[in-house]
Amino acid sequence: MGPTQKADTREHTLERMLNLLEQAATRGAKLVVFPELAFTTFFPRWLIEGEALDHYYEQSMPNPAVQPLFDRARVLGVGFYVGYAELTSDGQRFNCSILVDGAGTVLGRYRKVHLPGSVEPRSDARYQQLEKRYFEYGNLGFPAFRAGPDWHRAIMGMMICNDRRWPEAWRVLGLQGTELVCIGYNSAAYDPNGGVTEDAALRTFHSTLVTQANAYMNATWAISVAKAGEEDGSGLIGGSCIVDPNGRIVVEAKTLADEVLVADLDLDLCRQGKDKMFNFGAHRRPEQYALITERAGVVEPAAATTRELI
Amino acid sequence: MGPTQKADTREHTLERMLNLLEQAATRGAKLVVFPELAFTTFFPRWLIEGEALDHYYEQSMPNPAVQPLFDRARVLGVGFYVGYAELTSDGQRFNCSILVDGAGTVLGRYRKVHLPGSVEPRSDARYQQLEKRYFEYGNLGFPAFRAGPDWHRAIMGMMICNDRRWPEAWRVLGLQGTELVCIGYNSAAYDPNGGVTEDAALRTFHSTLVTQANAYMNATWAISVAKAGEEDGSGLIGGSCIVDPNGRIVVEAKTLADEVLVADLDLDLCRQGKDKMFNFGAHRRPEQYALITERAGVVEPAAATTRELI
Repeated sequence: MGPTQKADTREHTLERMLNLLEQAATRGAKLVVFPELAFTTFFPRWLIEGEALDHYYEQSMPNPAVQPLFDRARVLGVGFYVGYAELTSDGQRFNCSILVDGAGTVLGRYRKVHLPGSVEPRSDARYQQLEKRYFEYGNLGFPAFRAGPDWHRAIMGMMICNDRRWPEAWRVLGLQGTELVCIGYNSAAYDPNGGVTEDAALRTFHSTLVTQANAYMNATWAISVAKAGEEDGSGLIGGSCIVDPNGRIVVEAKTLADEVLVADLDLDLCRQGKDKMFNFGAHRRPEQYALITERAGVVEPAAATTRELI
Repeated sequence: MGPTQKADTREHTLERMLNLLEQAATRGAKLVVFPELAFTTFFPRWLIEGEALDHYYEQSMPNPAVQPLFDRARVLGVGFYVGYAELTSDGQRFNCSILVDGAGTVLGRYRKVHLPGSVEPRSDARYQQLEKRYFEYGNLGFPAFRAGPDWHRAIMGMMICNDRRWPEAWRVLGLQGTELVCIGYNSAAYDPNGGVTEDAALRTFHSTLVTQANAYMNATWAISVAKAGEEDGSGLIGGSCIVDPNGRIVVEAKTLADEVLVADLDLDLCRQGKDKMFNFGAHRRPEQYALITERAGVVEPAAATTRELI
């Protein structure tokens, strides 16, 4: 998807999504992946206080404003992944995604675990990254879901944006036999507050690289979908792509605007990796991985006090 | 390094290694990375029984046959990583590597955790992969070592071959603040027993891809070094490369023969990733990673029994 400005109405954005859905269905798609926070601009770049913030959240899903997407998808027999800001009835806020099959059944829900940014705004910054302020950490783990026969009983998982850079997220899905990971993202193209050390090309390379390698290392398909382009002066990278279980890009976006990419996903391509190189049961050694769950941050080794001289 | 045949003498192979060491030192290198099982052919492709097997193992390190490498490196002030088959005094066998600094001090030792292959030979196979028969699983974890001032007090870690495909290995090193990972490998270029589903180009792509992505996701430099070319009719991929903390290839091998690659490694390039995107203490959520250490193999989700209808 191309950019969505702060001033864009929900109706306007939904019209674009319906248009993309129709195009994909016409080209034979049975699953459509929309990006993270697909119904709005990437609002965590703004400090928004009080009730104005609630405008960006969905208090139920579906709800009247987005119902046409659900209705049209069911008529077309197309399922979808979509990311949105969730406000629960008891006031919890999550960066959330759902997976809906072609019959309109919600296969699963995911709440983003790897929230980037900060709780407090930076006083000197034109744009913020306030996901840690606006959302709680996801509390559903990384669940995998078994699809129905229309999706060949695929085992499917979800991530949101920054999650894709964290191999732990992929591995927890991989350990459930996941064959297809759906990812939506909004990733800054550069640091709009100056101090530029990474440009859009490098950031797009990073996004693609982690998707390719983690798909390979877990022998899974991956569909990684950007909201791209310039939102109210702040750039977002593109780089949407579909990656096979060998880590190869099958198709990738050419623009930063609304664009439909279609590919056939042969789930059997996962078997080579899952049965041989990445046969986890045969080759993983969890007793050597203890630090991964014992420790969040880095503890550096001390300088050697005694060293073995030759 | 190019290939080493079964019939090659240890002296001949050591002569090649000394030549590479000299070339590297002339070009200013302070650290030289040799491959896995650098002193011999990749012998796990053969079923070897009885005392003939011991020929391929080092019973001490250094020992008279390899002492010239240690001596020359110390004179040149160049340290090195080298992989070899270790036979301990109490009869344990490991696929091992050591890191020796320019003063001849052993900074650290590593024993390969992710052993591929099988214990039993395949009766129909021309070439075997018997690492699980010839080696015990490494029992030293993935330790990181703090170098001395000659190596700018870098935090360094080691892997061997297949380890590089396992993000857990990288993460355990990353959680110790590792700034440079040294890797040696011998990776089959194709399945010499037929049933070819991956060619050398795809396997080289996999090798490079995992090195790039894991270096990026842990904000570390990586030096990944092949033993390449055809050993007694069995092909090994090349693809030796030096990768920066952004996952970019700085230099890569052009041949499958003995070849020296040199790069300057600016350790400060690790800081951007370690302090921001991959500030583990700020962004990791170990409470969501439990499956990684609880479970070795895959457990697939059951088909949904109750599903949420919209």
